[in-house]
Amino acid sequence: MIFQFVNFIFMKISIIIAMKTILTFDIGGTNIRAGLFTEESIQPFYTKKIKTSSQNGSALENILSLIKEVLAQHPTLDAISMAVPGSIDNKNGIIIKAPNVDGWKNVPLRQIIQERFGIIPFIENDASMAAYGEWKHGAGRNHNYILYITISTGVGGAVIDNGHLLTGFRGLGTEKGHMTIVEDGPLCSCGKRGHLEALASGPAIAAYVRKKMAEGFPTTLPADPAPTAKTIAKAAKQGDALSIEAFRTAGHYLGIGFANYLHLFNPSCIILGGGVSFSGDLLYEPFYESLKEHVMSDQYLAGLEITYAQLGDEAGLIGAYQWSLDNL
Amino acid sequence: MIFQFVNFIFMKISIIIAMKTILTFDIGGTNIRAGLFTEESIQPFYTKKIKTSSQNGSALENILSLIKEVLAQHPTLDAISMAVPGSIDNKNGIIIKAPNVDGWKNVPLRQIIQERFGIIPFIENDASMAAYGEWKHGAGRNHNYILYITISTGVGGAVIDNGHLLTGFRGLGTEKGHMTIVEDGPLCSCGKRGHLEALASGPAIAAYVRKKMAEGFPTTLPADPAPTAKTIAKAAKQGDALSIEAFRTAGHYLGIGFANYLHLFNPSCIILGGGVSFSGDLLYEPFYESLKEHVMSDQYLAGLEITYAQLGDEAGLIGAYQWSLDNL
Repeated sequence: MIFQFVNFIFMKISIIIAMKTILTFDIGGTNIRAGLFTEESIQPFYTKKIKTSSQNGSALENILSLIKEVLAQHPTLDAISMAVPGSIDNKNGIIIKAPNVDGWKNVPLRQIIQERFGIIPFIENDASMAAYGEWKHGAGRNHNYILYITISTGVGGAVIDNGHLLTGFRGLGTEKGHMTIVEDGPLCSCGKRGHLEALASGPAIAAYVRKKMAEGFPTTLPADPAPTAKTIAKAAKQGDALSIEAFRTAGHYLGIGFANYLHLFNPSCIILGGGVSFSGDLLYEPFYESLKEHVMSDQYLAGLEITYAQLGDEAGLIGAYQWSLDNL
Repeated sequence: MIFQFVNFIFMKISIIIAMKTILTFDIGGTNIRAGLFTEESIQPFYTKKIKTSSQNGSALENILSLIKEVLAQHPTLDAISMAVPGSIDNKNGIIIKAPNVDGWKNVPLRQIIQERFGIIPFIENDASMAAYGEWKHGAGRNHNYILYITISTGVGGAVIDNGHLLTGFRGLGTEKGHMTIVEDGPLCSCGKRGHLEALASGPAIAAYVRKKMAEGFPTTLPADPAPTAKTIAKAAKQGDALSIEAFRTAGHYLGIGFANYLHLFNPSCIILGGGVSFSGDLLYEPFYESLKEHVMSDQYLAGLEITYAQLGDEAGLIGAYQWSLDNL
């Protein structure tokens, strides 16, 4: 049944062979999402979601067999473009480190794909590709100076300056959340202390609440199961003082961090993505109050648009698609 | 005598009329330096230094009369390029704010020059132009990902990512020293607290020593005249414990700040400029120790060159010259 459907889809492809066709991947720790696009539309005409690694194969094996499958049906593929959650040596197409993907380390992904299929793939960081997608087709369409920050399990992001996507020498320039805000502050996922990620990510908000609960602060939240950013947001909206305070604290530190970003990058548009950023006024009000307090001149806020990501889970795929089209 | 010399110089110019000729300015709070270059050489064939503002005229009047003087001798000027110490609206060529220059605020410099002389000048931030000069002709020649930081009265700088000079939307992206390192820390020149500039600039080092002296810390430094970064560096080299500690503290915070920079920009080359950065091991050792401690992965240090600016006072002029050549 599925096979017939896939066949049907690929028959459709043959109708549009005159157009460029691009296979994109958004590789995550849990799932790999693939999309086939023509240069005509940002709507993929075929998508597939597979587990990143399974009993049947590693992430790499799964990616290679999916490329093989698509090429069998569509031998005139013009480009392969991949968004990978980690640091990438852009010059050589090597995944330096993608801890969430089978512990990938120094994987020469470009070389492997090129040798196997004769196509040189585009390989970029996933936050960079999501930012690129939001710039070209999402919340940043009317801007050329964009700061894209996702706040969820971690804090990461990308910057576009006058249409140029910053990558850094070895593709390591997307660690926007690993900026020291409180020396000797809470432990960060990276092992250092007091980074913005350790103060304002989902786990940071949860850790703050757990610490205060252990200290005996009253709250309507149950101790078991341990509260998450999501349950804390819900409790805050119902008036729980500790939960409100947790978001107020995160917002305060985000304001300091974003003031730093503004002084360093002077964007005309901030795009917020990731689950935590969608907590509404609970987070936004203390964040913006703190931003105004910490920014050194109103010039940075003049004409600054602060908005939310529009492409959702599609941002990485759409960004990778557009990136390859623009760089083919 | 001077007039004869200038005439002689301009006669030389007529020999090389086939080449592009560029008039550059490096505008400072005290002096305006001008240079005439041909596309052949980064050595200006004519230079002039005038007071920024004097009894005889404001900065703007002095600049305009110098352009007039040069145009009289050299009517085929191909470009005018200016490095200005402040924030610049690059799109419109407006000096938004240059507090050290007659308190310039919202000066439509491009329009004024274009209307007067029919030449559209290039106008950029002076730190950006110095970074551009160091990249093309100085310490950064072999790199495409450069972090240029000057540590002197203030802390400022510029970033080049894959050959792209970051400016920000309104040219306000060079305030690299206004990054909060210690919330509620020492007062910064910008009016906020705990910025890197307030912890590691020359005045910050001097303020640290003055505070400790007032608290009764022993030192060989006299209280009057008040110690400066220069006299503190001298005392430190002679073994004064408080002076050594002042530089150690500045180096510590610089290490935190530069770890942030590395995570955000991932350069392959750091170029240090400004008087304080030339304090030798006194500053460099605690700085590098702190940098290693605070950087989240050795990947950021792998292949990273940390070096000193090579073009000295010429960096701004040479950068402005090269910038105009590359963008003509």
